[in-house]
Amino acid sequence: MMSGKKDGRVTAAVLIIGDEILSGRTQDTNLRDIAKYLGVHGVDLAEARTVPDVHEEIIAALNALRARYDYVLTTGGIGPTHDDITADAVAAAFGVELYEHPEIIEQIEARIRSRPGVEMNAAMRRMARVPVGGALVRSAVAAPPGFTIGNVFVLAGVPTIMRAMLEDVGHRLRGGAVTVSRTVRVEGSGESVIAAPLEAVARAHPAMSLGSYPFFDAGVYGSNLVLRGRDPDELAATIIELVAALKSAGIETVREMDAP
Amino acid sequence: MMSGKKDGRVTAAVLIIGDEILSGRTQDTNLRDIAKYLGVHGVDLAEARTVPDVHEEIIAALNALRARYDYVLTTGGIGPTHDDITADAVAAAFGVELYEHPEIIEQIEARIRSRPGVEMNAAMRRMARVPVGGALVRSAVAAPPGFTIGNVFVLAGVPTIMRAMLEDVGHRLRGGAVTVSRTVRVEGSGESVIAAPLEAVARAHPAMSLGSYPFFDAGVYGSNLVLRGRDPDELAATIIELVAALKSAGIETVREMDAP
Repeated sequence: MMSGKKDGRVTAAVLIIGDEILSGRTQDTNLRDIAKYLGVHGVDLAEARTVPDVHEEIIAALNALRARYDYVLTTGGIGPTHDDITADAVAAAFGVELYEHPEIIEQIEARIRSRPGVEMNAAMRRMARVPVGGALVRSAVAAPPGFTIGNVFVLAGVPTIMRAMLEDVGHRLRGGAVTVSRTVRVEGSGESVIAAPLEAVARAHPAMSLGSYPFFDAGVYGSNLVLRGRDPDELAATIIELVAALKSAGIETVREMDAP
Repeated sequence: MMSGKKDGRVTAAVLIIGDEILSGRTQDTNLRDIAKYLGVHGVDLAEARTVPDVHEEIIAALNALRARYDYVLTTGGIGPTHDDITADAVAAAFGVELYEHPEIIEQIEARIRSRPGVEMNAAMRRMARVPVGGALVRSAVAAPPGFTIGNVFVLAGVPTIMRAMLEDVGHRLRGGAVTVSRTVRVEGSGESVIAAPLEAVARAHPAMSLGSYPFFDAGVYGSNLVLRGRDPDELAATIIELVAALKSAGIETVREMDAP
């Protein structure tokens, strides 16, 4: 079983909150952005869950995830409308009350001051609610902040706002060893011929993660072999062995750097 | 709490299996495709989980989901390489053995017959493994089938293959009432002014699901208000009420049909 504490790994889970994802209306992209961001900070994303805008569902998933992993990042449900219930659910999960954070109220007041005829209303005040004991997660965009409480970070669902909030999360994470990864690309050979040499190299390097991700694009088929690990030297050695093993099996490869 | 049996709802969960999703390397699109497909068949997607290629993690998530929802659809991990362990995990979850399905073996043999020099190997045989008691999920594409056992459907992770397999899933689903949905688009007004009229209409129509999904695109901001329900007549009436309520609050709307 995977554990937050095993061999120095620092782990996180993502909890995506929103009917719009489960109905298929909206394509989630936050999971991938968060995964990459955490990777850079040496934190492994170990699990993700998507739940509907239902109070008890959010609480149950949040409690399961925050007990098991070092960090939980939630997305969605912190806007001003009646279906934005994330703050209520997070407060309930931690057994604390919500209060209107004066800094958020001030921020909203400053924004509406520039819009004649617009007055503070209940919906705007809703976005200022933060659980007692929580701290703000600020962003550079013109949107109310998210918040953090315990090991949980509560972020917006709108991708541009979520990404801006992430920048105020990284410095609070206790990072593990950063994972390095490289890709070896095989074209014109299927997974069924790659499998044996790949498995032999995987067995010889149990500390490395070797994955095979087949593609079929514009008439070209093949597989991207992704090597991932903590030790850059072992990663480099593993790549050399893998390319040699594939060559012995008559398979030509292209080495690629991964995007950072 | 949501339940698979509550008020005639038929529910499903999606279990996405794969390190490549949790590392951020791959953007998942299967969840959205499955959600839309299930919606058309009157099945509500109630939860989704993403787990790594770890035997015990797949088993634990699968057992939790299949006990709770009417159906579970898994994606990923059914290829020929050592990290493709979904069949093993599903068989273990059901407490049964795997066997090589003769139809898949025949299909692979037929395919390699046309490729001189290629012989059946262990990796290819790996893709023919199906749990005892399972049935095949066939597709129109040149890939080994998925399978179904109990209330679980095991599908490929490659989107084109997954979508082709889905076509062999729908006719096996006991569908609930099909949900109808429509969108009312608001431009130039933020959620903070929409919230009050939206909530009033939502309270008056508890059988309808009303969600607000803000956007900010190319300088235009606003929100898509999505109405969803079982009863097309109530949906039509709710839209009329919502547009009137928004108009009373000085908010102009555009009515949009949803894609089917």
